[in-house]
This record gives sequence, structure tokens and C-alpha cells, in this order.
Amino acid sequence: MAEKPENTPQKRKRRDRTEEILQAATRLFSEQGFRGTSLATIAEEVGLTQPGLLHYYPSKVKLLQGVLEYREKEDVKKYFEIVESENPDFKIIISVLQELVADNQEKPALIRLFTVLVAESIRPDHPSHDYFVDRYNYARQVYGDIFSRLQSEGQIKPDVDPDQIAILIMAIMDGLQIQWLLDPENVDLTKSFKVFAEIISNYLKSE
Amino acid sequence: MAEKPENTPQKRKRRDRTEEILQAATRLFSEQGFRGTSLATIAEEVGLTQPGLLHYYPSKVKLLQGVLEYREKEDVKKYFEIVESENPDFKIIISVLQELVADNQEKPALIRLFTVLVAESIRPDHPSHDYFVDRYNYARQVYGDIFSRLQSEGQIKPDVDPDQIAILIMAIMDGLQIQWLLDPENVDLTKSFKVFAEIISNYLKSE
Repeated sequence: MAEKPENTPQKRKRRDRTEEILQAATRLFSEQGFRGTSLATIAEEVGLTQPGLLHYYPSKVKLLQGVLEYREKEDVKKYFEIVESENPDFKIIISVLQELVADNQEKPALIRLFTVLVAESIRPDHPSHDYFVDRYNYARQVYGDIFSRLQSEGQIKPDVDPDQIAILIMAIMDGLQIQWLLDPENVDLTKSFKVFAEIISNYLKSE
Repeated sequence: MAEKPENTPQKRKRRDRTEEILQAATRLFSEQGFRGTSLATIAEEVGLTQPGLLHYYPSKVKLLQGVLEYREKEDVKKYFEIVESENPDFKIIISVLQELVADNQEKPALIRLFTVLVAESIRPDHPSHDYFVDRYNYARQVYGDIFSRLQSEGQIKPDVDPDQIAILIMAIMDGLQIQWLLDPENVDLTKSFKVFAEIISNYLKSE
């Protein structure tokens, strides 16, 4: 978490505080919500003045963007890189997805932040709209490419549209997150995704 | 639901404006968002003073609640009643669900309102939190009961958990709505749900 602020005399070179700011903002947005967190609180948390923070991110929305990209880099891309680089087989893909979901279940505050933001970003004038449109397109393409490859290798049956499978996998994750976050006692994210994984595996497997 | 206003002594009987208010509020919330719509605008739209409107709904949040319940009554319950009252077979259930989704695709503004609200309601302190927790529980139970019945009739295979199927169906609808609303040119709600319907039918059918 946030380090102690350095001695700050007038002269010395400023060190890059980006990482600390992003970690503090992620934690605060998750705990208190985007709207409930002020730039002042974040600045204080990392031992910067508000103008000092604005030097890194000129607005709260820009900082939010930074948080989202940071989270992607840390988390989702990890999975994308595995599945893109190693040409894993169908079974591994499904188990990587299950791992991703199980991982998410351990981070309710972050997933809540993300879920609310995606929904708010549906409005074309929302500051994160373009970010999420691009992000979803990118993810659909990554998944679509994987299922295309598996199809060309004969690992999944030929008469399915890989792009539709990509859409459905992302949809089930988002939809399950909503039910789980609303009512964690009645909906278990990992358990329900496992059922879905079984259903989709069953459907896609080449006979 | 809002009570009927009482006879007001001095002069004339006021007629019940509940229906008009709900229709105007639904339209305005959908077009301008919940936060972007003021009670004053809604009052003006139906030709009431703001105190006149507050007589029906004492706050914007209460009015929103009214809109949600009104929409349920008009729309989703229609489908629930069909599927609950007529003991339809598996094929009919699936086609009723597809109709519901196709219906939703015609109402992007309303579905957007609903999608953003559900996500915001994830926070336990949100004024619609309890409403949505109850609504999802109710819907899961309706669907769960249907799949239990179909299972007991041998229409779907015995080794599936009907409650999990209920969760997944609701999740795919919510998740597809997010992708479709974000990017209607790249995601077709009805088309993707059709693929899911095929997958789940395939999985559930009793051999």
C-alpha cells in the first residue's frame, strides 16, 4: 500500500508516484465508491498536495481511467497473455476462465467498482464510455480468436460461431457478478460459472 | 403502490394521476437518466405542481420504485404469468424467453435505465438495493420452479440443478444487455440470446 512520503525539500527531483497513486485510488474507489472518494482523500493518502496529484492525473475521471488500465494490466491481461501465448487446448482455456472467476470472487470491492462503472458507461456521454467499448471489443476479439483457433484445430465443433461464444462467455461473467454482488448469500459466482463452463464445454466439444 | 388520494374537502374530487405520473417518469428517466431528471420536470410534464406530485410520491427515489414496479407489472410479469399459469413445456418456455429478449431489444432506453439501476443497487445502502435483491430472488424462484417441474415431468434431464439454470438464464440476459447497450453495432441481443437458448436446450434435454 501507500509508502511514506519522502522528505520534500524544494530542490530534489520528484520521483514517480504513479504506482502509489493508482494503488491508493483503486483501494479507495473500491471501498468508498468512485463518487464517494475525493481527490483530496487520495492525495492525502499518498502524501501529496491536491495540485501535486493533479500533476499526475488532471481530473478524477482521468485517474479512474488510470485505475482501470492498471487493473487490466495487473489482472485480466495476465489471463489473456496465458491464453494467447501458449496456444492452450480447450480444457486449459476453460480452466483458466474458471480461475479468473475464482480470482474475482476474492475481490468483491473491486468487482463492484468495475460492475457499477461498466453499467454507468453505457451512456455515450459517460467519460468511460469509449474505454469500455474498446475494452469489450478487445476482449471479444481475444476470446473469438481463441475459439477460432480451437475450431480450426478441430477441438471444438465446426458449426458454432466463435464470436458468439466470446460474447456469451463475457455476458455470463458480467451477469453472474451482478447477482452475486447483489446477494452473495444466494449466488456463488464460482459455483455458477462452473455449471456454465460444463454446459458450454459439453456443447462445443467436437464429437 | 401509491394510494388513491383522498377526496379533498373544499371543492372538487381530484382524479388519480398515478398512471400518468408513472408513464411520464418512465419516459423521462429513460431519456435523461434518473439523476438527470428532476421532480420539477416530471411535475410539469403531467401538469402538476411539485407539491402535487409529492402527494403521490414523497421523493424521487419513491417515484423510481413506483416506475420499477409499474414496469414489472406491465412487462416481466406478463411473461411470468404465462409461464406460471399454463404449465407450458420446455420448448414454449424457451420461446417465451426469446420473446422477452426480443421485446427488450425494442426498448433500449428502458433497459438502459434498468441496467444502470441494478448495477448501482449493488451497494447495500442504495435506495433500490432491497427492491432488486427481492426482485432477483423472486425471478430465480419462478424460473427455478419451472425447471423443477419440467425435470419432474422428465422434460429435462435429472442431473441438473434447476436453481443454477435459473441463475444462468438471468445472468446471460443481464450480461448480454450490457454488451448490447454499450455497443449495439457489434452485439445483437436477440441473436446472441438465441445461441444461448440453443446451447441450454441442447444441454437440458432429456435423452
